[in-house]
Amino acid sequence: MTLVQEPQSGDLTAVFLALADPTRRAVIKRLSQGPASVSDLASPFRMRLPSFMKHVRILEMSGMIRTAKSGRIRMCMIDAPGLTRAEIWLAEQRAIWEAQTDRLEAFLMQEQSENEASNVQRGE
Amino acid sequence: MTLVQEPQSGDLTAVFLALADPTRRAVIKRLSQGPASVSDLASPFRMRLPSFMKHVRILEMSGMIRTAKSGRIRMCMIDAPGLTRAEIWLAEQRAIWEAQTDRLEAFLMQEQSENEASNVQRGE
Repeated sequence: MTLVQEPQSGDLTAVFLALADPTRRAVIKRLSQGPASVSDLASPFRMRLPSFMKHVRILEMSGMIRTAKSGRIRMCMIDAPGLTRAEIWLAEQRAIWEAQTDRLEAFLMQEQSENEASNVQRGE
Repeated sequence: MTLVQEPQSGDLTAVFLALADPTRRAVIKRLSQGPASVSDLASPFRMRLPSFMKHVRILEMSGMIRTAKSGRIRMCMIDAPGLTRAEIWLAEQRAIWEAQTDRLEAFLMQEQSENEASNVQRGE
């Protein structure tokens, strides 16, 4: 058995690492509803702006958000490809897993009906 | 604006942290195809068994895999709820984001048709 590393490995690692933090997930959740400035995004959290900016940068590097400066305000918005990549990866694993479960179920049902048929033949 | 922390925050953090590693993603990918023993899972990787076992434990704690000892062999298998939780979270964010994008599109189309109507009235 050999396992081939997926080509986008680095990107997916960055996406999942970005999602592995409640502050960053809350930012994604907020930005799903529409763009917001960094200071608006930071306001519900009890942390200094430099600490909050680290979270923003990790999200930006993962490709899940974009930021753009408009005068003195830095606006943040969702960038779909990063989120979609993570979702597709999970959906793919589930599809393989479900297909395997379906095959197992079909096999067990066939076994059962064959057993029942041989029991009938033997008059059990 | 207030952000309410999701109740399953810890669980989701464990799931996404578990996925933020190419070795652990390769294990999930392999287990999606069916159960496997720890030694079979470990064989494609150039690492000692104790290091590999750390990855197995992180996956187990995230609720994405289960392990069970059968004699001297430890078997691993996918545990659907952990994977599903991550998938649902991502799908929810996308749904909110798409609804917001649809509303924006509808607003822009309405604006455009109103502008065109007023241009026609003015004979432009």
